[in-house]
Amino acid sequence: MKRFRNVDVLLLLLLLAADARADAPMSPDTEACLGCHDSIHPGIVQDWKAGRHARTSPGEAMKVQGKALLVSSQEVPKSLQGVTVGCAECHTLRPEAHADTFDHNGHEVHVVVSPDDCAVCHSVEREQYGRNLMSHAYGNLMDNRVYKLLEASINGVPKLEKGRVVTARPEMDPNPESCLYCHGTRLSLGGTVTRDTDLGEMDFPEIRGWPNQGVGRVNLDGSLGACTACHPRHRFSLETARKPYTCKECHAGPDVPAYKVYEASKHGNIFSSQHKDWNFGAVPWTLGKDFTAPTCAACHMSLLVNTDGKEIAERTHEIKDRLAYRLFGLIYAHPHHRDADTTLIRNRDGLPLPTDFQGRPAEGVLLNEKERDQRRQAMQASCLACHTRSWVDGHWIRLEATIRETNDATRTATDLMQEIWKRGGAAGLAAGANPFDEFIEKTWSETWLFYANSIRLSSAMAGGGDYGVFAYGRFQMSGNIQQIADESRRIPRPGP
Amino acid sequence: MKRFRNVDVLLLLLLLAADARADAPMSPDTEACLGCHDSIHPGIVQDWKAGRHARTSPGEAMKVQGKALLVSSQEVPKSLQGVTVGCAECHTLRPEAHADTFDHNGHEVHVVVSPDDCAVCHSVEREQYGRNLMSHAYGNLMDNRVYKLLEASINGVPKLEKGRVVTARPEMDPNPESCLYCHGTRLSLGGTVTRDTDLGEMDFPEIRGWPNQGVGRVNLDGSLGACTACHPRHRFSLETARKPYTCKECHAGPDVPAYKVYEASKHGNIFSSQHKDWNFGAVPWTLGKDFTAPTCAACHMSLLVNTDGKEIAERTHEIKDRLAYRLFGLIYAHPHHRDADTTLIRNRDGLPLPTDFQGRPAEGVLLNEKERDQRRQAMQASCLACHTRSWVDGHWIRLEATIRETNDATRTATDLMQEIWKRGGAAGLAAGANPFDEFIEKTWSETWLFYANSIRLSSAMAGGGDYGVFAYGRFQMSGNIQQIADESRRIPRPGP
Amino acid sequence: MKRFRNVDVLLLLLLLAADARADAPMSPDTEACLGCHDSIHPGIVQDWKAGRHARTSPGEAMKVQGKALLVSSQEVPKSLQGVTVGCAECHTLRPEAHADTFDHNGHEVHVVVSPDDCAVCHSVEREQYGRNLMSHAYGNLMDNRVYKLLEASINGVPKLEKGRVVTARPEMDPNPESCLYCHGTRLSLGGTVTRDTDLGEMDFPEIRGWPNQGVGRVNLDGSLGACTACHPRHRFSLETARKPYTCKECHAGPDVPAYKVYEASKHGNIFSSQHKDWNFGAVPWTLGKDFTAPTCAACHMSLLVNTDGKEIAERTHEIKDRLAYRLFGLIYAHPHHRDADTTLIRNRDGLPLPTDFQGRPAEGVLLNEKERDQRRQAMQASCLACHTRSWVDGHWIRLEATIRETNDATRTATDLMQEIWKRGGAAGLAAGANPFDEFIEKTWSETWLFYANSIRLSSAMAGGGDYGVFAYGRFQMSGNIQQIADESRRIPRPGP
Repeated sequence: MKRFRNVDVLLLLLLLAADARADAPMSPDTEACLGCHDSIHPGIVQDWKAGRHARTSPGEAMKVQGKALLVSSQEVPKSLQGVTVGCAECHTLRPEAHADTFDHNGHEVHVVVSPDDCAVCHSVEREQYGRNLMSHAYGNLMDNRVYKLLEASINGVPKLEKGRVVTARPEMDPNPESCLYCHGTRLSLGGTVTRDTDLGEMDFPEIRGWPNQGVGRVNLDGSLGACTACHPRHRFSLETARKPYTCKECHAGPDVPAYKVYEASKHGNIFSSQHKDWNFGAVPWTLGKDFTAPTCAACHMSLLVNTDGKEIAERTHEIKDRLAYRLFGLIYAHPHHRDADTTLIRNRDGLPLPTDFQGRPAEGVLLNEKERDQRRQAMQASCLACHTRSWVDGHWIRLEATIRETNDATRTATDLMQEIWKRGGAAGLAAGANPFDEFIEKTWSETWLFYANSIRLSSAMAGGGDYGVFAYGRFQMSGNIQQIADESRRIPRPGP
Repeated sequence: MKRFRNVDVLLLLLLLAADARADAPMSPDTEACLGCHDSIHPGIVQDWKAGRHARTSPGEAMKVQGKALLVSSQEVPKSLQGVTVGCAECHTLRPEAHADTFDHNGHEVHVVVSPDDCAVCHSVEREQYGRNLMSHAYGNLMDNRVYKLLEASINGVPKLEKGRVVTARPEMDPNPESCLYCHGTRLSLGGTVTRDTDLGEMDFPEIRGWPNQGVGRVNLDGSLGACTACHPRHRFSLETARKPYTCKECHAGPDVPAYKVYEASKHGNIFSSQHKDWNFGAVPWTLGKDFTAPTCAACHMSLLVNTDGKEIAERTHEIKDRLAYRLFGLIYAHPHHRDADTTLIRNRDGLPLPTDFQGRPAEGVLLNEKERDQRRQAMQASCLACHTRSWVDGHWIRLEATIRETNDATRTATDLMQEIWKRGGAAGLAAGANPFDEFIEKTWSETWLFYANSIRLSSAMAGGGDYGVFAYGRFQMSGNIQQIADESRRIPRPGP
Repeated sequence: MKRFRNVDVLLLLLLLAADARADAPMSPDTEACLGCHDSIHPGIVQDWKAGRHARTSPGEAMKVQGKALLVSSQEVPKSLQGVTVGCAECHTLRPEAHADTFDHNGHEVHVVVSPDDCAVCHSVEREQYGRNLMSHAYGNLMDNRVYKLLEASINGVPKLEKGRVVTARPEMDPNPESCLYCHGTRLSLGGTVTRDTDLGEMDFPEIRGWPNQGVGRVNLDGSLGACTACHPRHRFSLETARKPYTCKECHAGPDVPAYKVYEASKHGNIFSSQHKDWNFGAVPWTLGKDFTAPTCAACHMSLLVNTDGKEIAERTHEIKDRLAYRLFGLIYAHPHHRDADTTLIRNRDGLPLPTDFQGRPAEGVLLNEKERDQRRQAMQASCLACHTRSWVDGHWIRLEATIRETNDATRTATDLMQEIWKRGGAAGLAAGANPFDEFIEKTWSETWLFYANSIRLSSAMAGGGDYGVFAYGRFQMSGNIQQIADESRRIPRPGP
């Protein structure tokens, strides 16, 4: 039922002629690795062989002119330039920097390849990513005393103590498969373990917090992040990162249903219906020719050009380059943070939050109007490649109204919650207690953590429909606030 | 890892020979449009170029004989017959009819192309669609005083007033990205805006309610609907409309989880697993040859033939042609409305609803048994192309029992709710209040709006399993009713 | 936008040469069937023609050497060996064994083809499947008096009786489209029905519980199961069964969200992004060459080899061959049952449950440590084809901790529930009542049936992120337990 187009036939004939192309040679060290691992770990070896790293060398890649250039480092060590980017090239790079470096059949191997290793060839991306909120995702959660309370209320194990439910620390911290699955773990070196392998006894490092591919992983060389969060091992594929399935790994739940909204949007429909004919590997990525509706990457990260080759959007690995607002920050949406490290923020009450409980923004750390305008323009550049200015303006005005209205609703829920805390219906921060662990507090959390977020993401992506209404949208948000109000009425008022 | 079949190889050789095909010429007006828009809006222009409209002319298309004919109008203006269906052909059509027509470099352009424009070539589809419930989706929601209360309870912003939560009208109506994202907005002309463009200052009309592609959009020429809801701009693709991703845009939430049920059904599994080898562009659509399991379009709309070319189902753009029942109507499922405009319905209590609160159908406006039987046969024709009569009958008997049983459960919930209203536990219609805005009322709404609907759709699509049980199905419906009963017991009974 | 690789071009040329291949002949009986059914039922006939059964004969298939062999029976009746596996071969097989055998134009046809029919060629798979929990899914649910109460609380219709909500038996049992959609129905023969067909009047058997393709269907020859649950009629495709969409039919809801977790996992991302280039039809299935990330089938069932052809995992149709634990068993996770028939299990309280309400395992029927270790090794063999031992061990240690911690949380919820029953806040087993039907009991059921299950599956599949946290994960589980505690405090304590 499939048809060939003529262009395919031409390509076919061209390919037959062109395949005299000589692939780059593998280094002897990588050949040694493959000597065993080819049959021990066929999955990852074959995956690597199917990728760019196995087919070209940094030296060849650096010769590429213009926008197709993928190696952003001006200089790459001569020793790496002439060979493919194989096992040894990454896993024996900068051995002194990695705490997990160990002797493996005479090679100084480290297990966890880090952004600083990748930066040898991709320095610009690594630098941009360092300014991305994601690279600080571990610390931004775990070193913030308020967020830490939310985390504890989730990861703790509810136990009965004298008839009351208390949140006990679990025997083994579930966080690496819970919040830190996406945020990234802090890796640290345990001891050394000796294993009986097919090739005799061998020593390996024990790494705490391993395995993990979270976006803000704290690595054994001190660097932050995991490029493999979006470019899965060992193909490290541009194509995969450009598809929405990658973003979905961490953006699908009720707290941040970006993927679900996208999938149900017009853009998502066109992607689902037509993407089998798109070219996800082209660099630069030509709008209209390579694809006809945006994926997450197109709007937020990719280098886009029009069919004349003119740049529409610069490549960035700092997502907030194109974001004026943070839509799913704690409690209220707000102008985006200027810095990626959010632990130093203090709101008007001295708490490490971008707004206070009334929704007023923290001073000096959030984007001002001029900066928001730059981000808006950077984002809208891709909208305008398909839509008129009046379309895009109409969309944006709605988004900003929705931010205000969901913040207003959240304010109502939060005022009710503050009153409940005040009247002793629950124990919050002022009582020295966790403000997120009781049932009524969980109900309040849902207002902003699920419903307000869904509504805003639905607005931002023109995903409209269900995610703004019945799928954790306005229906649930209004009901949830009525539920809090009902509960608050059940708390006895203090006597006269 | 992909294999070619011989049929592909033959096709390949044939295509090499056949591509002497001369495409239809573009009109000079459309060429003028593309002079600028090709590089300003590469996304939509390339999308258009990939579609049928850019490759053929109405005149050529009208020559097609038999079931492959796509132009249903008997007559098409001569001036349009010889050129492709380009920018100018649609956006300058019937300029006097469109309130948003404006002078654009000497062309009388209108922004919003409407079903009445499309009807120039596709008159039968437009006529059918006018009888489709969807074309009236705006008025059916916004001009019905009961539904309007539900809408207000959802889109209003909960605010605190003297300690009580009230639903305030928001500063800016969120409805265009909420209910009306799917139902369609009412477009109206604002003023004119002057914009500084790359080509100097230009005037553009300002359109309220824009952008929107909802199924019942009220257009600036007074027509109802947006063909682009299902045939996305600017490819207007048959292929896309035949894939379930299109229907998903508005049929995925808990109120109408049709897509989710489909995806988890046997049909959906076969679609997901095998559709890459199907031909979504063939007209007519041959069951068994072009596809081997139905998508939404196959059962509800498409012209289907068997491998002998014999018609199995007629093409229709009036969905209720094949529907005996409305499964997700307000409160109770019921025989389908006869007319697409439902605002004139009055139930036995004088309310504009297809049933009363006891579930009794409104008189004279719903399909009678004979009409339902016709719709059943129209739907079952496609079932019977793969399944035996006993299979299909077994399925249908279950569906009708499920309609009765979910209505019975809804009746229980509604009787409880009526009692709560009566005893002052909440303020409903009789008290002159919104019956959908309090927490207990929201809980009651979930009975029929989410759970009964899920169960029925799961039954109707043989999607069974989770959507009939644990995924907003019978588990939640029974629990929800128990919750309403528990709440009702907390309301003090009136004294003796 | 698609490119051909050289290997494809070579294949193309090879295929041109090789297609002199003679397909196996159809039997005269099957030809007779197709005489009518080709045009009456084009969907299923064409689907069959696209599958292996239409292209080869058992005799040819039995000649295959080594791991590519698909016919596992040592002996196949001579009469079947020389022809394709068509309509007549299956639907007239073993006529005396099937209660629904009827005379159909001179052929002894039965409607429902059973695993015992398939076993004529696929005896090993049938035998393994008989030891699979799934084959006993009907009885394990319907013949267990505790599970039966859960089923009744779900499938019953809530009705009002003297102001109280009671669960009434519905007019027509919805179970075939509810629990039994997946578990399978018990088929039985009703009478005979005479139908007016295009070919005159004909008699057909009436089958109660039909249609159904559930995994534990009780067939009219007494056999258990439906091969078509995973190999949909009439292609019976290996490819379809190897894709996760098949498993999704029954493993997507909140009780067992395996598909959703998979889809959001790294494995699922790679599948979604790259599987269009995988070969789902290769036997054996070569890891790295045919696919580069596991689907459900790869980990749980398929015969896997590495690129040297060395076996990584044996094919099995007994899923528990590779499962040490049952993660979504009733109330608590526990070492897997040894036998597929679980109705004979008795816990320490004499109930047919694998654990008691305190979580203590039933004695003698669950896998011991040594058996669990075998299952663990069988599962980990495929993990180790891509991951190091330390990666796999790190993963497994987390899973076992998560099993303990979710069981601890469930224990807290269950202790609260026991106290509520004791104090008369609800009527449980001890009061001779259904312990699953009241609202507070439903709330308690959600603890283990939804939230604990999601968390465990998220852990097991390294799906982490949302399904372990906010998507029916730890956030909901802890909130749910607090809700039960809040409710329990509202029940008046017995006086002194």
